Order: sequence, then structure tokens, then C-alpha cells
Amino acid sequence: MEQYKIVIDLLGSDKGPDAVLLGAALALKEFSNLCVTLVGPEELINAKKDEIGLDMSRVKIINATETITNYENPYTGIMNKPQASLVQAMKEAGKEEENYAGMISAGSSGAILMGSFRYLSDEKKTRPCMAALLPNGKNGFTCVVDVGATIDCTSSQLHSFAHLGTDLMKKMYKIDNPKVGLLSNGAEPTKGNHLVKETHPILAEDKELNFVGNIEGNNALSGDCDVLVCDGFAGNQVLKNTEGMAKRLITDIVILSKKSNRPEFMEVAQYLMKQYDISALGGGMILGTRKLIIKARGNSDERAIVSISRMLINYASGAAVFSK
Amino acid sequence: MEQYKIVIDLLGSDKGPDAVLLGAALALKEFSNLCVTLVGPEELINAKKDEIGLDMSRVKIINATETITNYENPYTGIMNKPQASLVQAMKEAGKEEENYAGMISAGSSGAILMGSFRYLSDEKKTRPCMAALLPNGKNGFTCVVDVGATIDCTSSQLHSFAHLGTDLMKKMYKIDNPKVGLLSNGAEPTKGNHLVKETHPILAEDKELNFVGNIEGNNALSGDCDVLVCDGFAGNQVLKNTEGMAKRLITDIVILSKKSNRPEFMEVAQYLMKQYDISALGGGMILGTRKLIIKARGNSDERAIVSISRMLINYASGAAVFSK
Repeated sequence: MEQYKIVIDLLGSDKGPDAVLLGAALALKEFSNLCVTLVGPEELINAKKDEIGLDMSRVKIINATETITNYENPYTGIMNKPQASLVQAMKEAGKEEENYAGMISAGSSGAILMGSFRYLSDEKKTRPCMAALLPNGKNGFTCVVDVGATIDCTSSQLHSFAHLGTDLMKKMYKIDNPKVGLLSNGAEPTKGNHLVKETHPILAEDKELNFVGNIEGNNALSGDCDVLVCDGFAGNQVLKNTEGMAKRLITDIVILSKKSNRPEFMEVAQYLMKQYDISALGGGMILGTRKLIIKARGNSDERAIVSISRMLINYASGAAVFSK
Repeated sequence: MEQYKIVIDLLGSDKGPDAVLLGAALALKEFSNLCVTLVGPEELINAKKDEIGLDMSRVKIINATETITNYENPYTGIMNKPQASLVQAMKEAGKEEENYAGMISAGSSGAILMGSFRYLSDEKKTRPCMAALLPNGKNGFTCVVDVGATIDCTSSQLHSFAHLGTDLMKKMYKIDNPKVGLLSNGAEPTKGNHLVKETHPILAEDKELNFVGNIEGNNALSGDCDVLVCDGFAGNQVLKNTEGMAKRLITDIVILSKKSNRPEFMEVAQYLMKQYDISALGGGMILGTRKLIIKARGNSDERAIVSISRMLINYASGAAVFSK
């Protein structure tokens, strides 16, 4: 069986390095073909390894204790902290001879983007973007790109996002000809803000894309498209609105269950929680780099690390569609 | 008891004039202090009045058979069709001596906006905007403004929207000092696209506004603000995403109920349908005009007309907060 190697940055999570380390240990148990390079405090790893059952035969450690926080400038963080776990992790992930499947970090988004451009950019120096895979109404996933890496975009950036999203969906889900939609305020090609109106014909004329036209907000995640192209501001709204509304309806059901003394309604709430557990899907995926980087959310727990490890293995192996 | 007069444009609804006419008849039954001016085909009204129990003692009729469709240019429609029901309705609503509480139309949004600027603009010639009142997580409503009237905005337009939304919430819900939020991709004042970054200090420095800062997409409808300011592109996303996600989770529950043969779960679906029945709340409210205009959605049924009539009465009377 082919082995897959990934790099995990232990620092940067709101829950501390312990949760990420535990996630790595669980991922190694779940995937027998996985090897991990842990970048973080060696002392901690050694202190915890027995307790959490870390299979050291498939672990490489790179010691790092410095972190780049959300409160510092990403550029200066990346440039001035060569010893930071994130920087060391990216340098490691970029080593061609190691042939990593990708890397995971729960660190600052800005620093991850800046670092990915500095250490992992492809030969074309593509500007990296951040995609999110959200569960859609057709039991699959829609790749929303960009979800916040580039807030103000140009049409040529949106064009690039369309290709990056298409490549991801082909590789990760084996979709032959992913449908690309452009987020707009109306389905007609004449609808949109300046950026969308300018981008529409560019996507329509590109024969390498399977462009299906404008997609309205109520259909953003209907499954009518596999790749939803939008600027980082709008994509961030799609991502967070989706999460906010799912949480809200689930909360409504919990309250209804309690108020009306109908404990069976909690089964509905639990079912939906599982369907819309966006945190378990990991956070943003950095596309446009030599290696796939998945940014775990700041509040990621060990389950998120396992789930993201699975995504990286699937991506690298071109495995069959992985299920929710 | 004080009487309230409203103008209802019978034409423009996808469901035809019959549904709107029936809605008017039901509204007259529900609100004994309501008088309506119906602008539409007189022949139809006379043919239907007995069947639907239209109280003719509180009805004035303005005959109109021409309509401005969604497929024509709003500007040329308004300018070249003086006999269109929408144009006649707006001219009527603008008559100061009639003292109307407002008007309802399910016609083309573009034509309503264009017409409102032409026939109902205030003395300052404010550019009208379109607001939506969406149910929030604190059992109230959040006024999202703009939701699609102006797709590409300037910061001074967003500033104007903040005031128009504040005025609406004061008058319609008797909120003393409505909290104003600015939709962004992060809570920090430094987060946002160019427009949001430029608008933030303008709202922050305006002492007449109760500005609470940036609001992220997952909190858009949490109730943390009473007025959510955004450009028409982003607001349209909030409106449609909210609706799309509510529909989707409700559909999930219906499917779960059937698949698992648990009919009691349908009670949960029905409860949520009632909570998130955005269509019953009417469509967009045109603000910045001499008279409040509520654009009923194209697919509005008779219930929507009753619900919007109630909103206009509440607005005009400065009545207590009306319930969901």
C-alpha cells in the first residue's frame, strides 16, 4: 500500500497544541498508510506520546516553539520568524524529495497565505486563494472560492479561482468536468456588480471551463455548480451565513424540544448537526500552491485534524469520492 | 378609530391580479380601519367583488390594464407608459391631500425603484434603497439595507442607508436607538473590502447613529444589530442565502421524516416553516421616498398582501411592535 506523508503544524490552534497532537495520533490510528511530520514543541510530543498512543514509527519531529499570532502582521511574521512552526512546516512541505501530500495548520490565515506564496508558490507564481468545501443540496460538496484570502478581487483573479477550483474538484472528487458558477444577485448574465459583469464573459469564453452562468445566493449550495466563484468578501459571507443559519435553525429545534417537552425532536437536531458540521470538514484549502495546504479552523479539535488528514490522503491518491 | 389608506397595485404579480385582489379583500376584513385604493382592471374587480367579499365601501378604484414587465427597461417603462398600473399607483400614493400610509406593488423591482424616484422622492432627492426585514435570533427583525437596489455602492450611499434603516426601525418597531452594524468579513474595524473600510469611520463618527461596528456573516441575523448596512450585492446574498439555507434544512427534515417513518418530525419542519416564512413578510421596502412602498415578491399570494397591509398600518400608526 502506498504511503502518504503530511506535515502538521502543531501551533496556532485556539485549543492549543495538545488537541492538534491528539488529532495526529488519531489520524495515524485511522489511516495505516499515513506518515506525519509534526512541527512543534518536541518536549510536549515526547511527554504526551505514550498517553495518546502516538505511533512513533510513522512520526518525524521538527522542533519549533515559536508561533505567528493572529495579532501580528502576516508579512513581518513570516519574514522575521524563520523559526516559527508555520515557516518550518512550509519549508518542510516544500521539499520535493520528501514528496508530501500536503500540510495542515490552524495558524493565522494571513500568515498561511503569505507563507504559502513565499515558500510554496508554483512555477507560475499564482496568487494563492482560499477555498471551502461546503456540503451541497445534492449530497456532494461545492467548492466556494475565494472565501477570504483576497477580499477585493479583479476579474482575472476570479478567472484564476475558477481554474483552481476546477482542478481541485477533478482531483479530489473525480468529477470529470466540474460545473463552474459565478455568484451574483441574479441568474441573468446582465446581473451583477461591476466585477461580476466583467468576469462573466471571461468565464463564458474559456473553453477549458464548464461555465454554467450566474448563481444566486439561494442556490449557492444547491449543487447546481461544483465550483462557486466569488471574491473573498462575498465568499466569506456565503461560508459564514451558511454556518450561521445552520446553527440557528438547529438551536431553534433544541429550544422547541425543551419548551414543548418533546425529547424526540433532539434527534432531528442531532441529524442536522452531523449534516452541517462544517468544522469537521476543516477550514479553508489553500489552492494555487505546489502543495495543498489545509487551514484548520482556529477552534479545530482532534476530529477536524483526522478529517483533514483524510482529505489530504484522498487528494494525493486521487481516491474515490469520500463521503460525508 | 383612525383610518389608514393604502394604494395597492393589482398588476405585476406572477400569480396574476386575482391573488392580489383576494389579498386586498382579506386585508379589509382583517383591519376594520383600512381603506384601499386598487389600481388595476376595473372589470376584473367588479366581476370578482361579490365572490371574494370585497367591502366596496372602503374601496376606491383606479382603472389600469397596462403593466411594466420584468423584461423591459425600467426607465423606458416608467417614462413611456403613463397609464401603467404602477405609474398610476405611484402618482396616487403621492397625493398629499389623500394622506396615504403607503403603497404595495408586486411589479418589477427596477421599475418600482425608478418610479419611486420619479414620483415619490423626498425633498432632498434621496436615492431610494431597498430594505428587507428578516427575522433575527433575538425574536425581532433586522433591517438589511440595501438588498439589491444599488449593486455597486459608494460609502456615502451606505451612510445614507444607515440613516434610512435607523428611521424605519424607530418608526416601525419603536426602537429608541437602533443598533447599526456594517456587514464585513471580520469583526475588527480593519477588516473589509475597500468600500467597508472607507465606510467604517464615516459611520463611527456620525453621532446620530448608534454604530456597533462590523458584523460578520454568521452574525448577520443574530440580532446583534437592528440595521445591517451593506451594498446591494452583499445584501442580496444575505437575503437569499438566509432563505436558501432555511429551505434546505426544512427539506432535510421532511426527507428525514419520510425516510425514517417518523411523522412527528414534520411538526419540527412546520414550526421552522412558520419561523422562516420570509415570503409572508413581504419583499423589499423602498426607503428614502415620501411614502413607504413595499415591494411584494413576484410570487406573493394573498397572505403576503395581508401581511404587508399590516406593516403599512403599523408604520403609519407608529403602533407597538407587531409580532411575527
